[in-house]
Amino acid sequence: MQSLSPLQLFRLTYQPKLPFLLNSLHSLAPIEIGHKREIEDLTLKNLFPETFEQPFLSFKKGEESDSFPALKIGVVLSGGQAPGGHNVISGLFDALKKLNPNSQLIGFCNGPNGILKNQIMEITSSLLAHYRNQGGFDLIGSGRTKIETLDQFQTASKTIKDLDLDGLVIIGGDDSNTNAAFLAEYFKQNNIKTTVVGVPKTIDGDLKNEWIETSFGFDTASKIYSEIIGNILKDSLSAKKYYYFIKLMGRSASHLTLECALQTHVNLALISEEVEEKKQSLSNLISQIVEMIVQRAMQGKQYGAILIPEGIIEFIPEFKEMIQELNALLAPHHPYFQQFNRLKDKVSKVKDVSQQLSLDASQCFNSLPLDIQMQLLLDRDPHGNVQVSKIEIERLFIHLVEQELNIRKEKGQYDGKFAAQSLFCGYEGRSGLPTNFDCQYCYSLGHVAALLLSAKASGYMSCVNHLTQPVEEWSLSGIPIFSLLHLEVREGKQKAVIRKALVDLKGKPFAVFASQRENWKMADDYCCPGPIQFMGPSEIADTPPLTLIYETWKT
Amino acid sequence: MQSLSPLQLFRLTYQPKLPFLLNSLHSLAPIEIGHKREIEDLTLKNLFPETFEQPFLSFKKGEESDSFPALKIGVVLSGGQAPGGHNVISGLFDALKKLNPNSQLIGFCNGPNGILKNQIMEITSSLLAHYRNQGGFDLIGSGRTKIETLDQFQTASKTIKDLDLDGLVIIGGDDSNTNAAFLAEYFKQNNIKTTVVGVPKTIDGDLKNEWIETSFGFDTASKIYSEIIGNILKDSLSAKKYYYFIKLMGRSASHLTLECALQTHVNLALISEEVEEKKQSLSNLISQIVEMIVQRAMQGKQYGAILIPEGIIEFIPEFKEMIQELNALLAPHHPYFQQFNRLKDKVSKVKDVSQQLSLDASQCFNSLPLDIQMQLLLDRDPHGNVQVSKIEIERLFIHLVEQELNIRKEKGQYDGKFAAQSLFCGYEGRSGLPTNFDCQYCYSLGHVAALLLSAKASGYMSCVNHLTQPVEEWSLSGIPIFSLLHLEVREGKQKAVIRKALVDLKGKPFAVFASQRENWKMADDYCCPGPIQFMGPSEIADTPPLTLIYETWKT
Repeated sequence: MQSLSPLQLFRLTYQPKLPFLLNSLHSLAPIEIGHKREIEDLTLKNLFPETFEQPFLSFKKGEESDSFPALKIGVVLSGGQAPGGHNVISGLFDALKKLNPNSQLIGFCNGPNGILKNQIMEITSSLLAHYRNQGGFDLIGSGRTKIETLDQFQTASKTIKDLDLDGLVIIGGDDSNTNAAFLAEYFKQNNIKTTVVGVPKTIDGDLKNEWIETSFGFDTASKIYSEIIGNILKDSLSAKKYYYFIKLMGRSASHLTLECALQTHVNLALISEEVEEKKQSLSNLISQIVEMIVQRAMQGKQYGAILIPEGIIEFIPEFKEMIQELNALLAPHHPYFQQFNRLKDKVSKVKDVSQQLSLDASQCFNSLPLDIQMQLLLDRDPHGNVQVSKIEIERLFIHLVEQELNIRKEKGQYDGKFAAQSLFCGYEGRSGLPTNFDCQYCYSLGHVAALLLSAKASGYMSCVNHLTQPVEEWSLSGIPIFSLLHLEVREGKQKAVIRKALVDLKGKPFAVFASQRENWKMADDYCCPGPIQFMGPSEIADTPPLTLIYETWKT
Repeated sequence: MQSLSPLQLFRLTYQPKLPFLLNSLHSLAPIEIGHKREIEDLTLKNLFPETFEQPFLSFKKGEESDSFPALKIGVVLSGGQAPGGHNVISGLFDALKKLNPNSQLIGFCNGPNGILKNQIMEITSSLLAHYRNQGGFDLIGSGRTKIETLDQFQTASKTIKDLDLDGLVIIGGDDSNTNAAFLAEYFKQNNIKTTVVGVPKTIDGDLKNEWIETSFGFDTASKIYSEIIGNILKDSLSAKKYYYFIKLMGRSASHLTLECALQTHVNLALISEEVEEKKQSLSNLISQIVEMIVQRAMQGKQYGAILIPEGIIEFIPEFKEMIQELNALLAPHHPYFQQFNRLKDKVSKVKDVSQQLSLDASQCFNSLPLDIQMQLLLDRDPHGNVQVSKIEIERLFIHLVEQELNIRKEKGQYDGKFAAQSLFCGYEGRSGLPTNFDCQYCYSLGHVAALLLSAKASGYMSCVNHLTQPVEEWSLSGIPIFSLLHLEVREGKQKAVIRKALVDLKGKPFAVFASQRENWKMADDYCCPGPIQFMGPSEIADTPPLTLIYETWKT
């Protein structure tokens, strides 16, 4: 059993504010709002014969009703942790009980695998009392198993029928919500009564679109990282000794990096989406950083910090190519790999590997330090693919920057001292105590999920809007997940997926960043957001992410 | 110019509470308290002919006096950042001005080097207004230059005479305070009027003793690290996937590790002092960790976290020996080093290096992975010494644990999955916004420094006691730094130094830890202290470090 710190105990008693509308839970009726998705592609439509015509729903106050039947609902957490998960569950629980005290909530243990294996626990009021407003996913656990094959659908259906579930809430990211749509469709086709509802979760912030303003957990994670980055900037300015190369978690999109840059005014932040659009090569990025270091040195400043999004590698053209070639070359069935794998002294064979690559890829490979080359060759997933997230890109950047600075030194173009430290802002951001914003957002999302279940709106995602307004004014809706799906080729196959929302280079948050960054490079205009505060004035304790605020700025 | 976040702005307006006594600043008189140090060693006494007889001072309320002359005081920050430095300066400033509005405070820029080079800035009320209760040392900067040679004393004296300083406040760790004692003695011997006062600073917490309860900054740093560690534990429990090997900053002593272990109930925390006392070898430590992993795996738990103090290497007997041999072998003047340094392909020579070592040292060296071997050989300071703090001990531990687990697997003694992540809690703890405790402690320390200056108590350290009591009841004293000095052999020479306070294995904080740790290994009794709170109930916003609380427990 876990101990609770004084702050954890205090947070247990926090009562998240609710939108006004949710105070009249019994009189909220789903209303179809005009919009319906135009379908360009029959393939997509054919995958969802039962659900492709679902309308967008909004919840408005109507007649009060007492006719909410008791529901038996299952809930599952899918994928990486995001602060606020427990509040989705407590919002769902409270709303279900308010609508009908005889309703029941069942948690599937350790992610979707818990559905396949029928591993469950009943979520009771007394159990939940230990998890309200707490971080982590430890009430029921999470996992990365996906329910996407026919076989898995059948196994899941068996569990769900055995349990006689009226509804299933899937709390997850883009893939988990896609699978929720397929499961909803499958249930309808097979006359299974269970309503499937999704909830948008991910600290990466890449599950967002016209309707979903942000995914939960992004606010807390970005604030935890911004605290660390702000402290580092202050330290760098005080000691005037180090450049910090800070890698930030977040698979593809650079939302976290952009948010943290806006929060802290770090000297330089690389945005993967920009790297891709401008086709910036690795040497190009290194030059950018070196240029700044040289200029700052001329002003006597030999310190600073640089943010690097974890996923950047896959956006650098020559890196992407090299990884593809390595993946092919070192696939488990490839004779070359088998030969390489048997070698004891792999270090001696590294040069040999590079000779098997195309000229471009080989050049890229040879420019890397030995330890990164070894990471590329040895840290591979079961399919033989390079594990991009394991590559220590922050160290690679330090190595290459140092190399380039030495060249400039020899040419007499640079005369400074360069000392660097690397840092990874990662796992500590996924399970922290959720901010007031995430607590309230998640608690509302849970309520809306309960309303969607009551309305038997299967294949919908719970959605809360106007998040930069006071909580009381937030509005509530249900988004047909189908409306978010697009066909994409993944691993050689055409698949219906929710497109990951990347940073919009034409959007306002990026524009604000772009308008400031030249200044931030030189001016040490550092800002320390400090630790997340749960009490005190609203502008300190309750603010939503800056990117969200900028997005809703009127032009 | 820096931007200030909403929280930073808010903190500017925070008014640190003061001990009751300090409300009557004008009536505080220094009183000699009986204790005087018994001197065992004439060498030590002979180094301090002018100051060795100084009595301990306490400040008690006496007659109100208006006769405080205007003083011109210099202040310098020495060494690594610690949260609260700006509050020492603002406490000093406010007290000086209260005692006599015509007093003046001068800051030396970028550490003691600013004294040698006469780089100064006047600290004004309007300037200070931007730094109250803020982290970092950026108001005047800091640096690691030491003032310890006769030459440096003469240069410093010139600056100080030129500026006509009545006093100099040195805010620093053990070495800086030692140097303050020597400077005070030098000034007295040379009839220089300047009073020298020290203030105990270091996040490491190793500047403490019978009189000094804690150094400032320790509280904030340990809370910043505990937030991160608590989040990691929660994440580890939620994903059930990783073991986290977390290295903690702190040169020799393990106070930070002990404090964080008590705060978070991490599964295992290594304490360097215990390693040394029990003469635990590296393989012994690895076995300890492996044993726990194997036991937890039997309970289906394949996750957890381990704290490793940064300085542990120097406490592991065979490691210490190996480093000494490497330092001798690879000293710049050694022919072997010169030969090694000319090599382009150093990797190929690593085996050769190990053959130059004694059997024990060579065994230790050969047990290390290649990247750590390279770190030992290549990351050396200007004197050719291995830079212990640059060795990635957390990765070394992961490597060795993995190796040992594989052996047990082959023997059929272990059947789990081991996936590990490494993490360093370091620079982000040195410059964060100081906790209320550090704000108040530092503000009081600054006041006491002003009182010592007014009393011309040169060679004293500012001291505030009863820190686990309410602020109002804190008491004030001045400790003759001489009384803290001991003779130690450092780099072959006998030197007078303040002994670094290591973790007391017979003390209460360690006893509490020792009584709990077997339970914490297995039980997942994780605790998340969460982010530092500045507002709210006192048990959340104002608590001192746990180690300090336990130390003052009555038996």
